[in-house]
Amino acid sequence: MDRISDVRAGASRLYSSSLEERNGLLALIRRALDEKREILFSSNREDIKEAEESGIKREVLNRLLLSDEKLGSAIKGIEELEKLPDPLGRVREKRELDRDLILEKRTYPIGVIGMIFEARPDALIQIASLALKSGNGIILKGGKESKRTNRALVEIIKGAARESVIGEGWIMQIESHEDVDLMLKSEGDVDLIIPRGSNSFVRYCMENTNIPVLGHSDGICHVYIESYTSLEGAVKVAVDSKIQYPAACNAAETILIDQKVASEIAPALIAALRENGVAIHGDRALDPELEEITPQSFGTEYLSKEVNLKVVASIDEAIDHINRYGSHHTDSIVTTDRTKMDKFVSLVDSADVFINASTRFADGFRFGLGAEVGISTAKIHARGPVGLDGLVTTKWILSGDYSIVADYSKGGDKHFSHRELI
Amino acid sequence: MDRISDVRAGASRLYSSSLEERNGLLALIRRALDEKREILFSSNREDIKEAEESGIKREVLNRLLLSDEKLGSAIKGIEELEKLPDPLGRVREKRELDRDLILEKRTYPIGVIGMIFEARPDALIQIASLALKSGNGIILKGGKESKRTNRALVEIIKGAARESVIGEGWIMQIESHEDVDLMLKSEGDVDLIIPRGSNSFVRYCMENTNIPVLGHSDGICHVYIESYTSLEGAVKVAVDSKIQYPAACNAAETILIDQKVASEIAPALIAALRENGVAIHGDRALDPELEEITPQSFGTEYLSKEVNLKVVASIDEAIDHINRYGSHHTDSIVTTDRTKMDKFVSLVDSADVFINASTRFADGFRFGLGAEVGISTAKIHARGPVGLDGLVTTKWILSGDYSIVADYSKGGDKHFSHRELI
Repeated sequence: MDRISDVRAGASRLYSSSLEERNGLLALIRRALDEKREILFSSNREDIKEAEESGIKREVLNRLLLSDEKLGSAIKGIEELEKLPDPLGRVREKRELDRDLILEKRTYPIGVIGMIFEARPDALIQIASLALKSGNGIILKGGKESKRTNRALVEIIKGAARESVIGEGWIMQIESHEDVDLMLKSEGDVDLIIPRGSNSFVRYCMENTNIPVLGHSDGICHVYIESYTSLEGAVKVAVDSKIQYPAACNAAETILIDQKVASEIAPALIAALRENGVAIHGDRALDPELEEITPQSFGTEYLSKEVNLKVVASIDEAIDHINRYGSHHTDSIVTTDRTKMDKFVSLVDSADVFINASTRFADGFRFGLGAEVGISTAKIHARGPVGLDGLVTTKWILSGDYSIVADYSKGGDKHFSHRELI
Repeated sequence: MDRISDVRAGASRLYSSSLEERNGLLALIRRALDEKREILFSSNREDIKEAEESGIKREVLNRLLLSDEKLGSAIKGIEELEKLPDPLGRVREKRELDRDLILEKRTYPIGVIGMIFEARPDALIQIASLALKSGNGIILKGGKESKRTNRALVEIIKGAARESVIGEGWIMQIESHEDVDLMLKSEGDVDLIIPRGSNSFVRYCMENTNIPVLGHSDGICHVYIESYTSLEGAVKVAVDSKIQYPAACNAAETILIDQKVASEIAPALIAALRENGVAIHGDRALDPELEEITPQSFGTEYLSKEVNLKVVASIDEAIDHINRYGSHHTDSIVTTDRTKMDKFVSLVDSADVFINASTRFADGFRFGLGAEVGISTAKIHARGPVGLDGLVTTKWILSGDYSIVADYSKGGDKHFSHRELI
């Protein structure tokens, strides 16, 4: 299979597969990855060598490395996925329209998904397995630095698929920018694009396709400290949100402090952040040694140990700030006041809204979704971490007995009962 | 409020409203429409007069007319909507991540919806009420032929809204093509575009915005007659699908007949269609007086009493034909064979897939959704008739006890329980 337009037909056996067949192929893939570890490690060593020679950033190198531990946990991830219930064929609504006229809304695969992701071989394993379990054809474009490892991975997956009745036609790998552009233009052949990676690249995808796009560009997340029973707890949540993995999209970029607690918590928070090597931008009235802050600071995704600190007069100012400067990703309030929790949850316009918890919890695995293909800040379809449930669509199935609409219209003698059956 | 960018702020009181407040405003609107019937009818008469003078089509005129009966049923529709349960704040998922760390996925309004629709005043009432019940700000652009009636309607709705704590800021009317273009470019201010109307206009919207679009352009629907216990029933379903309202998007444009029943059913079907004044395109081997058929015929949405008739060798050919030429809207199989029902439902890639029932059932009211803003052929978010459920999004709400991710990571001493609570 050479062409993007072939994936839909190639996936036809997958579209009508049973849960047992999909789980069976997941198990075949899992075992093949385990058996062919050495092939994978050797391809990965070549990728790493080339990346090192090109003087790539330490962080990218860390992602690129397919260690024994990472492969082990990706294989373990497939095993977990096999145990999850079937996301397909679920009855979401069921209604009697009349005797002998039953309506159901059931889940089905979306079709063909185009996935573009960073140079992280373990992500390829996760994405391909989620697509398979949810019955979707998948076109994979991984980061170019991991090209040898990705080729080896897709070869192993295709090899396993050839042993299965599902076949290998549901998975395709593309490598060039030309192919990405072609995919973005493949309306009718591709149903959904999920881009991960740099903000500018995700925006490029969104602006150059008429195919629906799920994902997020910026990750500008906030912690708003309104009140607390434990000053130590409040500081802990803010610090974890910033430093637990500063390069992640769900790391906090701005900490807002309510003015009524500012004089108490600011010194403790500043000290804790400094202790963890975080550079703090903020008003020097709080601390004469803070870094300069500008309105641009609030729209910056630092992706490093750098944070903005701002005192706000009220919860309304905090919510306005978050909705204006944030990226509708993940925002957390630390508070003891139930009314303020409710207001924050109701009015902050973000995918994930947390109470007394670190923004870093925004993640498919931590949420219990098994895994994720990405985090969506769209309001349409899947929002937040996207797992199996975000990879299905629905059909309305109506079963009648030679039923016609004329009988239910003016002059007809039948009437809708509209009785809910679930 | 004059600007598209003001609607989000104008709707802020709606975003935090209770079900009682929203239902209260629906009741105020319902009563105001009832009291001000004469103002509406007089504006509508002026629209009708101008339309008649411009020599508009009879069909458009029928849609444009706001009769006593249509207004009555629109008012009745609002009353029904008041009785429906709150689409907001529903808990779709609830999961314990750990003791004191509870995750919920709850429904919230999408935000601001831009709705473009044909010259049908009763549609304006339905759309505005659905937006209000689902907590969404709405920008309305109705067909220009109904401009006086629309202005009167929006004035009445705004008047009622001023009496309510929700206020009038959530609803805005636009009239010019320039404003439509501005709306299509208002990413960040508008969350979803729902266009109705001509295929070319819907396509124009899809191609000229980065805002998500819900809707459909073509409505090329099929009836496939595979087998039957009642020849009369099978003919009835096909005829109703074509003639019950030929200008609707859910009317059938092609009838496929399985070759094993063709010689029996074709004569009866052709006779019944002719009796109802339908022009039939098809192979003259079936009947020497059929109209010419070309491959283009199968991609044509007639919107009138015209239909294609085609004999297929098998269910596989039928499914291939539907997926190739159809518009993924509504397709029906007439069959007695359970295996074939399942195959058809599983492999036909359409929003609505029916068994032994007319394609004309594809409608929000008939489905029991109360009403609809449109029918979506997208696979993302809402598919098929879009009612209240299609007008909401979700947020993930995580409530912790100063919970941090470091405790659940390498070196931490906590573990996720991931226990489902609903």
